[in-house]
Amino acid sequence: MEEFILTIRCDDAPGIVLAIAEGVVEAGGNILESDQYSDVITGLFCIRIRFEAQLGSLDSARATIMAKVSRFEPNFLLRTLSHRPRALLMVSKYDHCLFDLLYRWQRGEMPIEIPLVVSNHNDCRELVERHGIEFVHLPVSAATKTEAEARLLELLTEHAIDFVVLARYMQVLSDDLCRVMSGRIINIHHSFLPGFKGAKPYHQAYERGVKLIGATAHYVTAELDEGPIIAQDVVRVEHAHSADGLAIMGSDVERVVLSRAVRLHAEDRVALVGSRTVVFD
Amino acid sequence: MEEFILTIRCDDAPGIVLAIAEGVVEAGGNILESDQYSDVITGLFCIRIRFEAQLGSLDSARATIMAKVSRFEPNFLLRTLSHRPRALLMVSKYDHCLFDLLYRWQRGEMPIEIPLVVSNHNDCRELVERHGIEFVHLPVSAATKTEAEARLLELLTEHAIDFVVLARYMQVLSDDLCRVMSGRIINIHHSFLPGFKGAKPYHQAYERGVKLIGATAHYVTAELDEGPIIAQDVVRVEHAHSADGLAIMGSDVERVVLSRAVRLHAEDRVALVGSRTVVFD
Amino acid sequence: MEEFILTIRCDDAPGIVLAIAEGVVEAGGNILESDQYSDVITGLFCIRIRFEAQLGSLDSARATIMAKVSRFEPNFLLRTLSHRPRALLMVSKYDHCLFDLLYRWQRGEMPIEIPLVVSNHNDCRELVERHGIEFVHLPVSAATKTEAEARLLELLTEHAIDFVVLARYMQVLSDDLCRVMSGRIINIHHSFLPGFKGAKPYHQAYERGVKLIGATAHYVTAELDEGPIIAQDVVRVEHAHSADGLAIMGSDVERVVLSRAVRLHAEDRVALVGSRTVVFD
Amino acid sequence: MEEFILTIRCDDAPGIVLAIAEGVVEAGGNILESDQYSDVITGLFCIRIRFEAQLGSLDSARATIMAKVSRFEPNFLLRTLSHRPRALLMVSKYDHCLFDLLYRWQRGEMPIEIPLVVSNHNDCRELVERHGIEFVHLPVSAATKTEAEARLLELLTEHAIDFVVLARYMQVLSDDLCRVMSGRIINIHHSFLPGFKGAKPYHQAYERGVKLIGATAHYVTAELDEGPIIAQDVVRVEHAHSADGLAIMGSDVERVVLSRAVRLHAEDRVALVGSRTVVFD
Repeated sequence: MEEFILTIRCDDAPGIVLAIAEGVVEAGGNILESDQYSDVITGLFCIRIRFEAQLGSLDSARATIMAKVSRFEPNFLLRTLSHRPRALLMVSKYDHCLFDLLYRWQRGEMPIEIPLVVSNHNDCRELVERHGIEFVHLPVSAATKTEAEARLLELLTEHAIDFVVLARYMQVLSDDLCRVMSGRIINIHHSFLPGFKGAKPYHQAYERGVKLIGATAHYVTAELDEGPIIAQDVVRVEHAHSADGLAIMGSDVERVVLSRAVRLHAEDRVALVGSRTVVFD
Repeated sequence: MEEFILTIRCDDAPGIVLAIAEGVVEAGGNILESDQYSDVITGLFCIRIRFEAQLGSLDSARATIMAKVSRFEPNFLLRTLSHRPRALLMVSKYDHCLFDLLYRWQRGEMPIEIPLVVSNHNDCRELVERHGIEFVHLPVSAATKTEAEARLLELLTEHAIDFVVLARYMQVLSDDLCRVMSGRIINIHHSFLPGFKGAKPYHQAYERGVKLIGATAHYVTAELDEGPIIAQDVVRVEHAHSADGLAIMGSDVERVVLSRAVRLHAEDRVALVGSRTVVFD
Repeated sequence: MEEFILTIRCDDAPGIVLAIAEGVVEAGGNILESDQYSDVITGLFCIRIRFEAQLGSLDSARATIMAKVSRFEPNFLLRTLSHRPRALLMVSKYDHCLFDLLYRWQRGEMPIEIPLVVSNHNDCRELVERHGIEFVHLPVSAATKTEAEARLLELLTEHAIDFVVLARYMQVLSDDLCRVMSGRIINIHHSFLPGFKGAKPYHQAYERGVKLIGATAHYVTAELDEGPIIAQDVVRVEHAHSADGLAIMGSDVERVVLSRAVRLHAEDRVALVGSRTVVFD
Repeated sequence: MEEFILTIRCDDAPGIVLAIAEGVVEAGGNILESDQYSDVITGLFCIRIRFEAQLGSLDSARATIMAKVSRFEPNFLLRTLSHRPRALLMVSKYDHCLFDLLYRWQRGEMPIEIPLVVSNHNDCRELVERHGIEFVHLPVSAATKTEAEARLLELLTEHAIDFVVLARYMQVLSDDLCRVMSGRIINIHHSFLPGFKGAKPYHQAYERGVKLIGATAHYVTAELDEGPIIAQDVVRVEHAHSADGLAIMGSDVERVVLSRAVRLHAEDRVALVGSRTVVFD
């Protein structure tokens, strides 16, 4: 027996759950876990199912289930539980988020493949290569930005990348790239959005005198710091903490939140419904 | 259209989800939300479904769905979303948990009926009657304990009580009563179980010098403070807090945790699997 | 023996701690607890001391200590620990924050006197009067706003009010009143500032799809929702929560945060340093 | 100017604060931050002061302040803020706590020197040596336990170790060693003490069905898992988490709690008062 993950998202309509259940049974599956939600705002139906079945052809299982549900014109994904999506990580100089992702990946806690890490600086090369992962230095300047993004797109194709993680990558991506990779780029913003958008959020937080600071992992859209939120968390701070102290405490929250978002995405637990996310956790 | 809650718990077996989906569709239902879990330890399948359907006979819907699933010998519940289970609250002298439950009930946040409150003291009479709820004073002593429990059982029947909430009720219930009402009595223990069982947990916590104190809502079993846990939470404390200070801070956690557990139970979000609970929230 | 609270805030300068310690000893005091902080941004020195001494004249103790520290031109407060500042509570229609304050006050957990509650509506009259507290209905319209504020100022004087708590009071106070009562009006904003300023923050939060919602207690300044923050907290929310659901969950955070801020202020644990606060807790 | 940390613990007595303030001023110091607490149970006075002064002889400053306070027979420590205590880390096979300590140390967030890491296994050698730190393999068996502890004591002396951190070191230390190093060995226990003492706490937690799991950093005493608690934290878990899943989530809490405790100890923010701790944070 092997385990499978099935996710479906489509306009809500009567009979969809029955059709899915029929498909899974016809494919020989026994449902172990199921989460479903119908979003009121968008009218979208989202489901994530884990089922077990005899190891057979994934393609034939797909065809069997799809035959039952195709009339709902679903966004449809079926894969084995053990399949690991391929992530490209991007980083600039701050290494704490990258560090945490690699650490969890090495321990087997992060169900992704990491074919390569791309950076506009060379600072993290040793860290990456020590893990046996290819490091690509892709400098970006105003003059080379278009060329660099073209190269990045090539890398995405060459390495069959499923999604991109901006682990404190400090360059803004072009609108084109955001569109092409819509719902497949995860960024960590070092504040509790929508508070403190833009640059130097810890300094903003220090000057405002907040009592909690936070971090937000979200999908990247063309509009800066406005994409659908996947995960957020905060930590309590006090008057005695300097702006630098906030940055240190905040970096702990950043890495936890980003790692959590990457795991949720990699496990197909996040469904996009308009500008918001449904998270099955 | 009206909304319904369906919960089923039975031994896990292939085809159960399909059978349920068929039943719901045959009853004219459209599933809005569904949570399912198959417990590894006990082999129990648990599902909670919210669906909408044309207002018709609840009994006929029950029969329709039951016909599809009866071969699984399920623990089966179908009710309208708007139906409110009937809870009997018990209290001794500390009123903070009772206070919180009544406050939320009055605001319409707590989906229960409260036909009466029973207490072994008279301290909370005014609070209860102010809410238009009957207050029954049922003193308990070593001599009258059997008699008092007999009267309590009568009250449960007379008022068609679905479940009992011990909102800081300081008498231990008899094993018989625990058995009769198994899975239908919720207690709040003022510590983070399994730490600090028994009496005076805040004093125990103070002497041990813990840095967090907590509260635990659990179903009552014959064995004291050992029943299946429904909800827990903690709050950070410091060296400067006295045992009395811990009790004050702890009372906030107690009321939040108990109110949460009562709401979860009343919304049929808690399934018992052996000595543990599955909570669909 | 009796316990005293001493707070001093002044420009930082060498010798200030020694001068204070000399003053306390000369007044016959033994220091039990002391918190001190020198703020880097404003250069302000803040200290809060709890000491015990023989019950004598408070005025003479004040004179003794002041003689030692007057050269630092301090903002100076000395009172007995048992003294309770006089708070005027203001509310509109939502009663959950008022409810929580009155509940804690009645239990003896909130060290304030509450001579009266003022509201622009009559909804909370019964709740207030049941606690034996005077309720003043002070309607506010565009036409009567100036007059109403004049009456409010009279009430502050007549009842020797130390500070004002806006427990979900939905009228904006005039700049004049904010200035007169600077650092003595506490408001609860139902979002995690600086996110979601202004009206309907829970609807804003719902539409943005945040994963945590919060509340912020702050001193009121002329600029809306921009005053120095005293306390903040958040609670985790999920995609399944509606805007109304967020409001219900948020109301729990609001009341906890506001009650915490009022207690901190009443215990003289909050020092204003520019647009931020130092909180000794 | 340089900054200094002064901590004093002694039986509480009138005049102690004044004596300290006089000493600091006489040593040319200006107090920047001060935390003080007098423990009711033990009658112990604890203070932690950060002050700035002209760089001079530390010994002479010590003598000056000590002259003022020696009559109180204090436990007395004066050091420069920049001084870093020397910690010996011990580990067995699980590397997550060691990993976190080394990571923070490398980033400059952990104010300690780490002359060497000792382990009864060789698994962590590469991790340690990569950081340029000496790794000592000190196997322990029933037969060699006495000998191994003797060697450990030698290492403590040779490397002038100030305190020991058991970063998931799975051997029980002898009573003798616990006594010699009393208050200077920090352990991480992977449960929320006093719940789930002893072995396999995550399995215990799984079977009990708790809704939060935790970790506890404490000083080591002869009695297992009973030493004074420095820091604790918890994380929310659900029915769907296996015992192994709890262990993964728990390992995150463990490393955060241990790193926090080590930082607090290294910054002289922890004072022992009997079987409890005072933490100035």
